[in-house]
Parts: sequence; C-alpha cells; structure tokens
Amino acid sequence: MRGEFDLIRRLRERIAAAGSDSGDRLLIASGDDAAVTAASGVSATSVDCVVDGVHFRRATFPPEAIGAKALAAALSDLAAMGADPGEAYVQVGLPDDLSEAALIGIADGLAEVAAQARVAVAGGDLVASPVLFLAITAVGHAATLDRLVTRAGAKAGDVLLVTGPLGGAAAGRLLLDRPELERAVDAETAARLRSRQLRPLPRLAAGSALAAAGARAMIDLSDGLAGDARHLAEAGAVRLVVDLGTVPTERGVAEVARAAGEDAELLVAAGGEDYELLAAVGPDRVEDALTSLRDAGLVPALVGGVEAGEGLVLRSATGRELDVRGYDQVSSRAPAGPT
Amino acid sequence: MRGEFDLIRRLRERIAAAGSDSGDRLLIASGDDAAVTAASGVSATSVDCVVDGVHFRRATFPPEAIGAKALAAALSDLAAMGADPGEAYVQVGLPDDLSEAALIGIADGLAEVAAQARVAVAGGDLVASPVLFLAITAVGHAATLDRLVTRAGAKAGDVLLVTGPLGGAAAGRLLLDRPELERAVDAETAARLRSRQLRPLPRLAAGSALAAAGARAMIDLSDGLAGDARHLAEAGAVRLVVDLGTVPTERGVAEVARAAGEDAELLVAAGGEDYELLAAVGPDRVEDALTSLRDAGLVPALVGGVEAGEGLVLRSATGRELDVRGYDQVSSRAPAGPT
Repeated sequence: MRGEFDLIRRLRERIAAAGSDSGDRLLIASGDDAAVTAASGVSATSVDCVVDGVHFRRATFPPEAIGAKALAAALSDLAAMGADPGEAYVQVGLPDDLSEAALIGIADGLAEVAAQARVAVAGGDLVASPVLFLAITAVGHAATLDRLVTRAGAKAGDVLLVTGPLGGAAAGRLLLDRPELERAVDAETAARLRSRQLRPLPRLAAGSALAAAGARAMIDLSDGLAGDARHLAEAGAVRLVVDLGTVPTERGVAEVARAAGEDAELLVAAGGEDYELLAAVGPDRVEDALTSLRDAGLVPALVGGVEAGEGLVLRSATGRELDVRGYDQVSSRAPAGPT
Repeated sequence: MRGEFDLIRRLRERIAAAGSDSGDRLLIASGDDAAVTAASGVSATSVDCVVDGVHFRRATFPPEAIGAKALAAALSDLAAMGADPGEAYVQVGLPDDLSEAALIGIADGLAEVAAQARVAVAGGDLVASPVLFLAITAVGHAATLDRLVTRAGAKAGDVLLVTGPLGGAAAGRLLLDRPELERAVDAETAARLRSRQLRPLPRLAAGSALAAAGARAMIDLSDGLAGDARHLAEAGAVRLVVDLGTVPTERGVAEVARAAGEDAELLVAAGGEDYELLAAVGPDRVEDALTSLRDAGLVPALVGGVEAGEGLVLRSATGRELDVRGYDQVSSRAPAGPT
C-alpha cells in the first residue's frame, strides 16, 4: 500500500469539502488522534456496516453507490430517531484489487450524501482487508431527550404510517442481479427501481417532521416491514396490525416480481432496504403528521394500527394472515446487530 | 445465521454488564435505532479497525485477546488526547466458521477492557462477512477543548517523553508466530512479551496525567515510534530528534530479536503496537509530568527533544542517523487512516 498517505490526504480533502457547511460543531476534524466536537443537548449515535458480497456486490454496484448507500443507511437510523444529523466516521476495509479510482468513487458517493444531509465526515480509518467493507458511525443531535423518538413508545389505539412506497429496493436488486428482467418495465421505471436499491435516501426531513408531529415510536425499514414492525411491537410491548393491502407499492414492483417468479407482496413486506420510516402516531395527531410529510414531498400512507397484546399481525391484501416467521429469511441483509 | 437474535441478546447482556458503572451519561443504550448520550463540554471520537490476517491472526490470538486489543487500540487514541473515555460502539464482521464460543470470547475480552476503562459499550452491529473484523468507535469527553492535547502543539525547546518501554509488542508477535523463539528468554518474560502483543493497555491515566501536567502535543505509539513521531513533527511543523539510546526497551526484546535474526533497535523504533504515549512537554513541566506518570505506576523516560525545522531525526544508540524512510514498512499494521 505504497503512496497510501497521499491517497488518504486526497480522500480526506474530497470528503472534508462536503461537510464544510455542516456548522461549527466540529472543532477538530480528521487527522488528529480523535475528532473533537462541541457537545450540547443529547447525541444519538448509530453504527451500520456493509460488506461486499453480503450487503452489496461490487459486480453490480458502482463505487459511488457503495459509498452513498452505506452512509445513507447509517443516517437512516438517525432519521428514525428524529435526530438532527451531525457527524459521520467512516472505516473502510480495502482489498488489494480495489482500484484507486474505485476508492475515490466510494469517497465521492459518501461525500455527496454527506453534503445533502449536511453531515461532516469527521474521521475515518482505512485498513487492508481481503474484502471490501464500510463501517459507518453516524452521530445526530437533539436539544433534549424528549425530542427524540425511540422504538418503544407505541400505544394501543395508535395509527401506523409509512413515509413512502415499499418494495422498490428489492425489485431494484432483482433488476441488478438479472438484467433480463428489465423487459418487464419501461426504462424509466427500471432506472427508478435500481436507484431505490443503489441510492436510498435517508428520510431525515420526514423523521424530524414526525418527531415534531408527536410520533410516539419510529423505526426505519432497513430489514423489511415485517421484521422492523416486529421490532416496534417488541420494544413497545404492544401488538402491531399491518394491512398489506394498504401499504403503497413502488411502481413496477409487481411487474418485476412477476417476471422474476417472485411474490410482489413478499417484496413489499420483507424485501427491505427501502429506508422509509414506519411510525406509530396517536390518532389525534395523524392529520398533522400526514400534512407535514406531504409538505416535505413524501407520499405517506396509513397502513395499520396498534393494539394491546404482542407480536405482529400481517394481513395480506386478500385478508388472510401471513405466516410472519418465514419473512425474516427473505432479506438478503444479515440480521441487524445490537443497535 | 439462525438463532442470531438470541446470540445478539446474550452478547449484549455480557457487554452491557461491563459498562454499567460508567456513569449516567448513557441515556438509551443498544437496542434502539441509535444510542443516546447526554452531551456536555466537548467530545473526542476515534475509530479503529482490525482485520483477521492483517492486524491479528485467529491462529495465534485467543478470542478474548482479539476483542480486548481492538477496544484497547481505540481507547489508546482517546488516551493520546487526554480525554475521559465514555462510550464505545462495536461493529463485528462475522465469518461463518467462527464458533459461537469464539464470538462470546471476543465479547468477553471487549467487556473486560470496557470495565477496566469504565467505558459503556453503547451500541454495535453484527454482520456476516467472509473475514473476521472489528470496527470500533470510541468516544471520550472533556470539559473544554483546551483540556485536550492534540498532535499539533509541540514547540522548539520541548522535551520528548515516552510513558514506558517499547519493542515488547513486536517481540511478542515474533514469539506468537515462531514459538521456537521462546527458548531465548525465560517463561515469565515470554509471557509478558506475548501479553504486550495480545493485551495492550490503553494509557488512559497517563494521558490524563500528561494533559494535566501541560503536555503540549501527544500521540499514541500504535504504528511505531518512528512513524508516530513523524506525525507529531508534521502536525506541529517542528523537527523531532529522538535518541534511540535513551528509549527504554522492554526486557527480553534484545534476546528474542537476536534469536529471530532481527534488529532489536528496529523493533523498538518501528515495531509498533506498544500503545505507550509519546508527548512533547515544556522544559519547565517535565518534572511534574514524570512525577505524575510515576505516581500512576508507569516507567517514563526522556527520549529526545523538539527543534525548529521539520521532520524526524532518529539517532541510533551508536550515534549515527538512521534511514527513517524504511521504517514505515516494518510495521505489520496497515497504515493508519484519516484519523
């Protein structure tokens, strides 16, 4: 790894430029033993890791998408808390056969998402590794603890909403893995589905809007609606009832699923990686929440409710209850870890 | 990865118990989208990543050592700032062939270091990976920015000191890789050298003591004295002069080096991973600094000084100037990344 310090310097410059308008919280950035930030209020910290061959494939993911998606996924956790994104730290495992151009592409993708989210990439680590991986730490902020929305607050009587259509990321993955499926949809639809897989957007504005509208519990849909809804049920010690017939489906998912011989409803319920938010909102706040989400340019939908009890009831559009247990295994993502 | 959620729960319990006395800064721990901490003053954040086959070898590292050393290395960066360690986040890439017992061993090693350092393991992520890696984020705290010591403050006239003997970790690595070398030293010495490689101690108390004694610049010796001293020179825009004849050598290093056909001075100057601190201290504060380090049970030594100019001059015990450039390539560690 000759010339690596030069490369690191160039990467740092590219990434640092992106976060330069992220405010004055960052006192000492990348390059010392540790980055130093001015603290105030409360901080929310999330970690998220992606590995080549597990969460993405270098064969089908452009380098920019690898960097962009890794950071977006970490920021999505902050969105799900309603936190204001602040800093990110990026650890990269770098295999010998990754070109310098590809590494710079990854950095550019990261920098693009950092700039959009006004996040400062405050530090990082670049190590030799037989496999490419990115381990991201994202730190967000809030004035007080009660401004943040956890997974745990859902109450019987709450209404469930999602911030946008699901299934697109899973259909996009099918298109990337099997390009011949593209015949099932028009080119624009195919591009949008691939983009949902390659370039997910962390729903930061939606998370803030939902927090402001008094959402009682929130989670981002990374693993899939079925798995993540169950997390919300478990954390709140309540039962969640989701009507799949009311869950908006990204346009083109049905056609791609049919061409692939997959069940479209399964892609929506368990495909994962759409990075929309699922929130439980008190019935008196639902109109507020929907209005502020629409004002933020989103297409939210009411998808079910919260009851006393436990677990998740996932009703198919035909009304039958689906066997939820099987759904976990559909996701191509490894199960999420301790956070 | 069946049963993974159960395993994560067990890991979380083992690790959470360790950090339970780390104070009331942690408001929401592991298990939500993000961990939430109460902020005050300034935060110092460092990331550090280790990969099997690059930074350690599963063949020679007991699982407990893998976890313990990964966290210790990250905390060492906080020590080098004089920060008070607070929280850690742990991302693990988990290969199929790592046994559950080994994973629990890694967690136990982490928990042990977390407990010693009074660090709360506040979150983490466990993902499938073809290679075992640990990506650690360590967060420390200080009341104000000027309580932290960066790499950048060394001034001409300052005295350089290290907090303890060097070369032990490199000799320990030789012993682990080539057990037949153990004949060169007695069993107790061999065990201590291996322990310096497997179980480094982050010099947190030393870092605090040096910060309180007014150290002007500080770095931890992870990559090796030669490389890290050069970082300090570069950050401070000064020249560092290190007399290797005054650098304390861990007992047994000379014997192991001789048996291995290696140059002992090279192990001391560039072996790396000793995780002692190198500090630049104003001449009027040297006695204070030495006294407080000795009070903390350490064996510090004065090893050189700071001059106007640039770069690093590394004087061999025989007085000749060593060719410093070659030293970087001795380290088995991949070059450190952006932080």
